[in-house]
Amino acid sequence: MKTLTDLEIASKAKMQPIEKIAEKAGIPIDALELYGKFKAKINVDLIPKETNQAKVVLVTATSPTPAGEGKSTVTVGLGDALSRLGKKTMVALREPSLGPVMGVKGGATGGGFSQVVPMEDINLHFTGDLHAITTVNNALSAMIDNHLHQGNLLNIDPRRITWKRVMDMNDRALRHITIGLGGPAQGVPREEGFDITVASEIMAVFCLATDLSDLKERLAQIVIGYTYEKEAITVRDLGVEGALTLLLKDAFKPNLVQTIEGTPALIHGGPFANIAHGCNSLIATNTARNLADFVVTEAGFGSDLGAEKFMDIKARKGNFQPDAVVLVTTIRALKMQGGVAKQELKSENSSAVELGLVNLEKHVETIRAFGVQPVVALNHFIGDSESELQKVQQWCKTNAVKIALTNVWKDGGAGGEELAKEVLKALDEPNEFAPIYDVEQSVEEKVTAIVQKVYGGLGVLFTDQALKDLAEIQKNGWDLLPVCMAKTQYSFSDDPKKLGRPTDFMITIRSILPKLGAGFLVCLTGDIMTMPGLPKQPAALKMDIDEDGKAKGLM
Amino acid sequence: MKTLTDLEIASKAKMQPIEKIAEKAGIPIDALELYGKFKAKINVDLIPKETNQAKVVLVTATSPTPAGEGKSTVTVGLGDALSRLGKKTMVALREPSLGPVMGVKGGATGGGFSQVVPMEDINLHFTGDLHAITTVNNALSAMIDNHLHQGNLLNIDPRRITWKRVMDMNDRALRHITIGLGGPAQGVPREEGFDITVASEIMAVFCLATDLSDLKERLAQIVIGYTYEKEAITVRDLGVEGALTLLLKDAFKPNLVQTIEGTPALIHGGPFANIAHGCNSLIATNTARNLADFVVTEAGFGSDLGAEKFMDIKARKGNFQPDAVVLVTTIRALKMQGGVAKQELKSENSSAVELGLVNLEKHVETIRAFGVQPVVALNHFIGDSESELQKVQQWCKTNAVKIALTNVWKDGGAGGEELAKEVLKALDEPNEFAPIYDVEQSVEEKVTAIVQKVYGGLGVLFTDQALKDLAEIQKNGWDLLPVCMAKTQYSFSDDPKKLGRPTDFMITIRSILPKLGAGFLVCLTGDIMTMPGLPKQPAALKMDIDEDGKAKGLM
Repeated sequence: MKTLTDLEIASKAKMQPIEKIAEKAGIPIDALELYGKFKAKINVDLIPKETNQAKVVLVTATSPTPAGEGKSTVTVGLGDALSRLGKKTMVALREPSLGPVMGVKGGATGGGFSQVVPMEDINLHFTGDLHAITTVNNALSAMIDNHLHQGNLLNIDPRRITWKRVMDMNDRALRHITIGLGGPAQGVPREEGFDITVASEIMAVFCLATDLSDLKERLAQIVIGYTYEKEAITVRDLGVEGALTLLLKDAFKPNLVQTIEGTPALIHGGPFANIAHGCNSLIATNTARNLADFVVTEAGFGSDLGAEKFMDIKARKGNFQPDAVVLVTTIRALKMQGGVAKQELKSENSSAVELGLVNLEKHVETIRAFGVQPVVALNHFIGDSESELQKVQQWCKTNAVKIALTNVWKDGGAGGEELAKEVLKALDEPNEFAPIYDVEQSVEEKVTAIVQKVYGGLGVLFTDQALKDLAEIQKNGWDLLPVCMAKTQYSFSDDPKKLGRPTDFMITIRSILPKLGAGFLVCLTGDIMTMPGLPKQPAALKMDIDEDGKAKGLM
Repeated sequence: MKTLTDLEIASKAKMQPIEKIAEKAGIPIDALELYGKFKAKINVDLIPKETNQAKVVLVTATSPTPAGEGKSTVTVGLGDALSRLGKKTMVALREPSLGPVMGVKGGATGGGFSQVVPMEDINLHFTGDLHAITTVNNALSAMIDNHLHQGNLLNIDPRRITWKRVMDMNDRALRHITIGLGGPAQGVPREEGFDITVASEIMAVFCLATDLSDLKERLAQIVIGYTYEKEAITVRDLGVEGALTLLLKDAFKPNLVQTIEGTPALIHGGPFANIAHGCNSLIATNTARNLADFVVTEAGFGSDLGAEKFMDIKARKGNFQPDAVVLVTTIRALKMQGGVAKQELKSENSSAVELGLVNLEKHVETIRAFGVQPVVALNHFIGDSESELQKVQQWCKTNAVKIALTNVWKDGGAGGEELAKEVLKALDEPNEFAPIYDVEQSVEEKVTAIVQKVYGGLGVLFTDQALKDLAEIQKNGWDLLPVCMAKTQYSFSDDPKKLGRPTDFMITIRSILPKLGAGFLVCLTGDIMTMPGLPKQPAALKMDIDEDGKAKGLM
């Protein structure tokens, strides 16, 4: 029998009208703005605010393979499993970026029978939020370049503009460009570059703002560059925060969809976790916390990236805590961490799994460093052998780590019930959550805390550029912000080739970018790129549509 | 008493649920995909196809001022007036581009009591169609640059890539850029430029395709550049027409909204008429023709631009004809054409109106050159004097031209009833419509026909570049396509300063771009730019949103 693709499974799913899902979630019908029959934006002002807030379950993972370990799949499956156990549950996820959809990784709607649907809508343009964010970002860029062209009253130094344009695309040729060429009528020449939309400060602001007023204030605070006298220039100086907020007013409403099993899901905001802070919007999480008793949410890539930022940035800003943490791992991820080449991951190799367990071990320690005991979700893939699975189960038993085998891809919520029960147990146990650093510490101390306690490295090196950035940040009094590390997802270190559990490494910070609107300092490490490239055979080559309008080739 | 702004009038309008509007239009409820309460996309496959097709009324204008002469306003007001007279009417309009919304002209939803609503949604992101088109355009660009980077199997000459990136923005600094800088890992360096989305071939293809299969075939035929041997490279060679079509599948469904008075309106596709073909999508027009008895639609700028392209490109492709043509003019437009400076347009000046009448005269002749007798709509503005209005009315009487004074901005449909009656009379009269040229003619003959019969000029000059382009087009056998002129909207000539009715001018074609997907040849004349710039004080500076999410400052 042929295995169905995720798209085929999603297309066969019998969806409920989104009004039914809203009713189940406790969302009044007046608060819904329908986008077709199965998607809706929610006017959060019309949702009753509860004082009894939900338990938040954060789903993170061990260091992933390029295809991902099914973190969204487990998040959805766990949500469905909790629903099956009679718990009032909502799932909160990030919106997919077209970069990976058209590139190599595919969409971000889960997989198999643990998906959010309508899968193809969510993976393509969805309700247009990413396009609105792209537009706002680039409208600001156009205003900056127009200001230069129209006399430059603010005395902006074109060489010191830090604001970059964005596109929701993997497009390496836009990383380093020059603009404004062609003579005096065509703008002022300067160096420029495009980032991918999900790495933009607009996305971060969007995901951390608590309401429209906060959104506008954060947008106003964004620093876009410096004058010839090195004074910071903000969006407020340009006077366009009103227009930018107006352009985001609809996008800022969280999107309601459903899982294949009918659990309500909010999908809103989508920063990557390697080059940005990696969590869905705070407004979506807060909405879910008001509506449900249990919120299952994910943060991108491994616990060194998304989870660290969830706890040190998002939970801190949102003034809540993760009540339980699920750590997703897979046999193939551990094999890769144990040194197996990508093309060999399908062959049974228990000893490689055993070698890779140090990676799991470090992720467990990292989560414990935040005062939380993780529950390991061993996400079953077709082809995993019994002996490979046992290696992981045995290690967890030996180290007193809760573990559940999940079959959510194949069995949906039913395949996540064991995990759900372990999570419910964990929620009953004491939790001593605390962020890993205080914002009052120096930037060096904050970064060092992350490197040592989260990554397990020795310490931090700053390049000359990073030291210059730091001096500027201190001069401006911006050093009391949290930090947002931009680092490879493949290793705890900044070198994607250092697998397993590297220990004797230093992290090199090559540049520090103040993001005053988002309210954090981005530290760029290693070779990490804020604009990905496409592979030799992009996923787009397989995408198609038939004459009846049915999608083909979406992953 | 303070005059209300368009936004204030639109915000106070009592909208009907879009399902009611659909019912009135004869659209089955199953064919609706709601976008909020007052917008819907229509699945045209679920609409009954009628054999008795509607009469099509095209609304065009004399040469405009920078603020526009209220062509959309008259289109909406005429639609409402026909509805009032008991005629089953639909309005078909273009989608606004954010470029003018953020720039100088403002939105494109009509004005006063003749608007389509919800005005702010339509003017901002609407249902995301322009974002989808931008995305498709730039996904293709990313695929091209990735192809160069990954070994360039097709042997594409980076210096001969004609496909440009786009943005839905006025952003002059992106007109001439260089990309792929920074070394071997960052793509292949080459010259590039951004056009505004509404000028892109994707927009043209979108607006001229009859169904999804036609859309995919047209996308496949797009020429993106040439090899080192000067062989054309198409989207089909790159193998991404399926992915591009998939990305357009929702956008391609026409959008249903309503006028303030509840007349159904389709708003879909939005090419500018100066740098593109200037009409809403053929699929929207065809849908309206199937549903209504009267379709009122507009084409951009003056009859030399949008109307010429409507008749020579859109009507030809769509195999239908305009059954009547309304020519909108205003006192201030005629005054400007009579030589009055922009800042003096508000002062009474009957002799300037008289001088400007030659412009009206030529537009009347241009429409007659297509075998149709125009109905002049003299669009009343506050401040027009009786003696100024009489000059125009008198001229029309003398020259046997139907004319009606319209007060649609102030009075909505009631202010358009006189016009509606004149249009109904015109529809009863014989109509000898024919395009101005045959596609079988040579490119020189086709362009000369437009210059002489539509613009009233002497003839055409081709620059060396245009002659080279032409030779290449002939070599490839592409010369039997219609032409799409890119020309300033302010003059019949290619010099925006030549007002009134210039006669002794030549049109200079500086370049000819083959658009094989759209199925026409774009001829660039004079200094016309395919990427506009922002003014010193962009409209964005006045835009804002209050704490309750209410828009401010949209025009």
